[in-house]
Amino acid sequence: MEPPHAPVAAEAGAGAGDAYTIRPLELSDLSKGFCELLAQVSPSPPLSEEAFRARFAELAALGADHLVLVAEEAATGRLAAAGAILVERKFIRRCGLVGHLEDVVVDAAARGRGLGERLVRRLVEHARGRGCYKVILNCTAELKGFYAKCGFEERNVQMGLYF
Amino acid sequence: MEPPHAPVAAEAGAGAGDAYTIRPLELSDLSKGFCELLAQVSPSPPLSEEAFRARFAELAALGADHLVLVAEEAATGRLAAAGAILVERKFIRRCGLVGHLEDVVVDAAARGRGLGERLVRRLVEHARGRGCYKVILNCTAELKGFYAKCGFEERNVQMGLYF
Repeated sequence: MEPPHAPVAAEAGAGAGDAYTIRPLELSDLSKGFCELLAQVSPSPPLSEEAFRARFAELAALGADHLVLVAEEAATGRLAAAGAILVERKFIRRCGLVGHLEDVVVDAAARGRGLGERLVRRLVEHARGRGCYKVILNCTAELKGFYAKCGFEERNVQMGLYF
Repeated sequence: MEPPHAPVAAEAGAGAGDAYTIRPLELSDLSKGFCELLAQVSPSPPLSEEAFRARFAELAALGADHLVLVAEEAATGRLAAAGAILVERKFIRRCGLVGHLEDVVVDAAARGRGLGERLVRRLVEHARGRGCYKVILNCTAELKGFYAKCGFEERNVQMGLYF
């Protein structure tokens, strides 16, 4: 399932390709543990079929400016990882594009096999193909090492205001 | 020009309301110094009328999910500040919405008058009105104090991968 233009041919964990299929999110993924997976990274109560379909359609309307990838385990048909990229259109840098990497999660039972890195690299590759000049993400200090392995460098401080 | 539901009635710099009008970006702003202003925060070469109009239309198609505000100086008709908010649609947190605060800049000659804080609070208010559960931003360590004054707290690390 890796495209021929994958960023790093010999990426770590590529050998796990037989066990997991990385592909765009589908409507049937609601019943394959999508919400349970997301709940491992952020509060994410189960969604109704209606709510999931509505958000799915809103994101689909953004075309290639939004992509959710999931990793489905061949043996069980359950989702083992997910992540998203949102392309932001700016005026700076000659109307440049920026990819925002969001909500990356690997199921606790599937960690340590390079699956997260494979997924992140696929999302980064999507942003690159879309013409983004960079991809950015926010993470806790504990995850800096993982993202450094994926090619990211620490740049700035993330601040937040919660309502 | 402050809406009646402004987040903080007695915000710093509110008295500057006579000197500056904060409003959404307009097509005529290309000739009011928009690119020159942006260039103070990021590389931002002048845009052709065609490129500016094309990006403007793309962003307008996002409706209230994208807003660029500018501050126009009454005395000169030039732009003195700008900033943008992009609303991201997620699956986590019951299909929650997140506001991304981007490309905030105040003209060097207009700093120290609370204009940046007024602009940021207006953008935050837009995100709140849109139903976002939080607004996030990335900044250098030097700007943490400014954003703390605007109500933000340091949360995480921002990492980037440049192509």
